[in-house]
Amino acid sequence: MARAKTSHVTPLFSEIAADFRSVVGPDGFLDDRSAMDAYLTESRGLYRGETPLILLPSTTAQVAAILRLCTRYRIGAVPQGGNTGLVGGGVPCSTADRPEVLISARRLNRIRAIDPENFSITAEAGCVLATVQEAAARAGRLFPLSLGAEGSCQLGGNISTNAGGTAVLRFGTMRDLVLGLEVALPDGRVLDSLRSLRKDNTGYDLKQLFIGAEGTLGFVTAATCKLFPQPRTVVTAWLAVSDVRSAIATYAAARDQLGDDLTAFEFANRLTVEFVAKHIPGSHSPLGVASPWYLLVEVSTARLDADLALQVQEFLAKLHATGLIADGVVAASGPQRDALWRLRHSMSEAQKKEGASIKHDVSVPVAGMADFVAQATSLVQGLVPGVRVVAFGHLGDGNVHFNLSQPPGTDSADFLARWSDISHQVHEIAVSLGGSFSAEHGIGMLKVQELASWRGGVPLQLMQAVKRAIDPLGIMNPGKVFPAEF
Amino acid sequence: MARAKTSHVTPLFSEIAADFRSVVGPDGFLDDRSAMDAYLTESRGLYRGETPLILLPSTTAQVAAILRLCTRYRIGAVPQGGNTGLVGGGVPCSTADRPEVLISARRLNRIRAIDPENFSITAEAGCVLATVQEAAARAGRLFPLSLGAEGSCQLGGNISTNAGGTAVLRFGTMRDLVLGLEVALPDGRVLDSLRSLRKDNTGYDLKQLFIGAEGTLGFVTAATCKLFPQPRTVVTAWLAVSDVRSAIATYAAARDQLGDDLTAFEFANRLTVEFVAKHIPGSHSPLGVASPWYLLVEVSTARLDADLALQVQEFLAKLHATGLIADGVVAASGPQRDALWRLRHSMSEAQKKEGASIKHDVSVPVAGMADFVAQATSLVQGLVPGVRVVAFGHLGDGNVHFNLSQPPGTDSADFLARWSDISHQVHEIAVSLGGSFSAEHGIGMLKVQELASWRGGVPLQLMQAVKRAIDPLGIMNPGKVFPAEF
Repeated sequence: MARAKTSHVTPLFSEIAADFRSVVGPDGFLDDRSAMDAYLTESRGLYRGETPLILLPSTTAQVAAILRLCTRYRIGAVPQGGNTGLVGGGVPCSTADRPEVLISARRLNRIRAIDPENFSITAEAGCVLATVQEAAARAGRLFPLSLGAEGSCQLGGNISTNAGGTAVLRFGTMRDLVLGLEVALPDGRVLDSLRSLRKDNTGYDLKQLFIGAEGTLGFVTAATCKLFPQPRTVVTAWLAVSDVRSAIATYAAARDQLGDDLTAFEFANRLTVEFVAKHIPGSHSPLGVASPWYLLVEVSTARLDADLALQVQEFLAKLHATGLIADGVVAASGPQRDALWRLRHSMSEAQKKEGASIKHDVSVPVAGMADFVAQATSLVQGLVPGVRVVAFGHLGDGNVHFNLSQPPGTDSADFLARWSDISHQVHEIAVSLGGSFSAEHGIGMLKVQELASWRGGVPLQLMQAVKRAIDPLGIMNPGKVFPAEF
Repeated sequence: MARAKTSHVTPLFSEIAADFRSVVGPDGFLDDRSAMDAYLTESRGLYRGETPLILLPSTTAQVAAILRLCTRYRIGAVPQGGNTGLVGGGVPCSTADRPEVLISARRLNRIRAIDPENFSITAEAGCVLATVQEAAARAGRLFPLSLGAEGSCQLGGNISTNAGGTAVLRFGTMRDLVLGLEVALPDGRVLDSLRSLRKDNTGYDLKQLFIGAEGTLGFVTAATCKLFPQPRTVVTAWLAVSDVRSAIATYAAARDQLGDDLTAFEFANRLTVEFVAKHIPGSHSPLGVASPWYLLVEVSTARLDADLALQVQEFLAKLHATGLIADGVVAASGPQRDALWRLRHSMSEAQKKEGASIKHDVSVPVAGMADFVAQATSLVQGLVPGVRVVAFGHLGDGNVHFNLSQPPGTDSADFLARWSDISHQVHEIAVSLGGSFSAEHGIGMLKVQELASWRGGVPLQLMQAVKRAIDPLGIMNPGKVFPAEF
């Protein structure tokens, strides 16, 4: 931001590129167009970036040295993890007069320590999430963060975006899992607070600044995270309910009666499940009769508890008797359970086969979900006759991916051209219900204007004050979260 | 801080007192010395404050108006909750040329909303913690924060100090329980982010700034907090172990085998329990034979689970067979369980009867607790021959209250005069083990110098940058966390 206000003249990047290359050595950079390609395009295809140089540092000291150069030369620094984001947060926007280097965490990929007695793990930012999960499992522990991209997303990206996923109900978002952070600051200082303490009230909790900041305040190089006992007993059910109101009542009753062993409470509408059955080989709806809404409910505990399945079945039978649940099945084996989760995890992929889609990542208080779905459905059907609502997500977190597939036989480009208009109105409904226009995906470039609309005034003023305090030259991830100039 | 650097001349407080009084009306202030007394002294007696005026606003708008006046006149504002702190964080230090008003949250005491389906509650800062717990219970929900002072401490103070207590192992500290905050800022703006969302990635998570900031960045006026299912099955055990190493191994095994239903894992040394038996009427050690260390272990679930007690007993029998546990008893009834918790909650009170005490609120990674206790005990016995170590706390959180009672028959004042020298060396051991010198009590005035010692360099620089960004005139709680001038 302040870059534009100073009298500093940014040199031509070609004149200083060697300085950056010498920090990381010959194996630590890419400047060949074809090699850079995979780093510059997001999976959803909404953004395509530009940069003269991709840096792949392998130590925290290298990251700090890169940022020190960025500060000296007023060069933008764009942190990138596994490049699985959906809002353009890791895409550089280099121009000739405002060069930006992309800094990939890929080679910062060591598990530094696991402490099973302290239930904690310390890992570098570039560790793939699945690798962290596996390292924890080998030590007899659970790292609970779980999301569709876990095979390629990285811990540093999970932290910088405060990732959510399917285990938030019981274990919280990434923010709740971080005990300590190591961060390279824009001016090259390093904040080392990799403590593995459950309690540490020694001044401001600085790590909170960098969690969910989308790389706009510093580069997260490593983290110490909480681990949990591994589940030994897992019960998974697939239920049919007639409406969202019944789904909410089922959730509240399940959490009340089955307790905090309720580890997942997902929901999806009929069309979503039909798309999966249609497009994903080997998948089919587990129930004989179609239903307006489905629930995927999981109850688990680290205890060996032979009675848990029976208790869940009795609970469900009671709700069935009252009419709240229309139908349901409890997985009788690991493979059956896996099949239910495959259904859930295939929803995004299945929707891709139905043409262009406009996606919303909305949260509301759980009790408001029925109103949100009803109002938003009515809105979009009015705006785009024939539009197909593909709604699924994490009901226990009040989080729905309220996605729209284009009407069959219409033009994709025409449909996508209406994204921002439609989204703004959908978000307006969420905000009017006390909700959020970005539950777990973040702001990136996609929602910069939305942030100004819905969090303008005091919240945005405070965010800007924090940004100025930590990154006064606006080096870190320019144009993300905030407009490039403000 | 910046107060000293401006050319602004602070008027005599007597000339502007009427402005403050008119904001809150005749029932909203105290300026009579005897009426003010209870607000100016901390329970431990280490601090006695001074102020010309205590303000008791009853609305957020009044708090904002008070802070606006403080900014206009460069008057310090000292937020206070239930005045149960232990580090001087809520005590004003008014002088003639640097007046400070005390702002009590006492009349901000409404429960604004409870949403059982969303498992959330919205309450004002001055609600007593026990009142919040009771309101949640009436709605069939659990508000898990629990600590000795719960009958008088207030929600706003719990938030501003990131309170811990006995349920942190399972539910986290206060930070983990906050969904949304309403905060009056130093210049009179109000940050309204009282959202009750589990997921909300819309820019920086501003509420994190104010949680644990000890009132140095703003005045927390209300909060939306998470609720949980109420426990229906509770099993509580009292165990004897021969050393801290065995206690740690028991903890790791219990959490691994009994899972996250393990809701408390407390420990205490022999002398602590002897002091309780000696000084607290009606209390006695539950085991026949004395032991170097004791554990209070609780396992609970919201499920009706008749097998849980048996499972815990079998687990303990196995550990007993291996020699890890020397002895133990499982509470067979509610009253037995209450008696065990009374033992735990009486430890501070019992220690008071043994003369002067020097207290440490230390945390280390759980696996490091044996080393900490051994090294710190050896240190203090060398420094003060005959000193009595009263060590107890939350082993599952790696948090020990490593307290020292004066040697019998020595002079209290002489002993207390050595507080800062002894503490600094005890803290040095904690920090060398990756630990913290303030696990849950905070910095206040007591540990300002310790913060500079142990968190100097980059962490303190970042904290100061945040302080300057949010409170540039240094209005909020001067001299707490940071020195009065820096």
